[in-house]
Amino acid sequence: MLSVDVKPIGVIRNRGDGIAMLSVFAAYRQGLEGLEVGARVQVLYWMHELTHGDRRSLRVHPGGDPDREMKGVFSLRSCVRPNPIGVTQGQVVMVNDDGLSVSGLDAKDGSPLIDIKASCSE
Amino acid sequence: MLSVDVKPIGVIRNRGDGIAMLSVFAAYRQGLEGLEVGARVQVLYWMHELTHGDRRSLRVHPGGDPDREMKGVFSLRSCVRPNPIGVTQGQVVMVNDDGLSVSGLDAKDGSPLIDIKASCSE
Repeated sequence: MLSVDVKPIGVIRNRGDGIAMLSVFAAYRQGLEGLEVGARVQVLYWMHELTHGDRRSLRVHPGGDPDREMKGVFSLRSCVRPNPIGVTQGQVVMVNDDGLSVSGLDAKDGSPLIDIKASCSE
Repeated sequence: MLSVDVKPIGVIRNRGDGIAMLSVFAAYRQGLEGLEVGARVQVLYWMHELTHGDRRSLRVHPGGDPDREMKGVFSLRSCVRPNPIGVTQGQVVMVNDDGLSVSGLDAKDGSPLIDIKASCSE
């Protein structure tokens, strides 16, 4: 089966204060041109804390609550899934020399950054 | 630099009639449990027609229009980008033995399917 080759373009720094720093590797920074404060962005990242076991689980208890009936992972937004790519949305609050500061992102500190796109709604 | 290992879970069949068929490989079908007609889903796929050259371009003319000033790919939704993962949204119109039929998806026929998630808005 084909495997696709995804290379991180940076790393997400998230101290939990509501603002995440998207630190973009130098080789990719030209791609940030045109991003301004206020822009809404969709951010893709690798949920790096998942284990190989998590990638093999296809059914989970929603919200991790054992009292709730198990459901298929494709019917949920659980981080447990075969390809643990997170998709989250936020708003640019600062453009820095090496990346962006973005509010509202739901990504853990240290997550490898995979992509930044203009938000669908724009 | 770390490279992450993404394995397609199926393939998208899109004849351009507004309904795409997400054909999920047998090994992953248990993950569909709980998906019902009417559910809104976010679909990740590999933009397989992109060339290695497209993956190296970090600035493009928006909409492919040479009269518009070039911008960085992370400020756009162009398919040209280092990691050509498409993110699109749709609504389940049929649950089949081997996958789902979904309306409203913006993905080309033959695209490798990477993930299906409940839509953010739910």
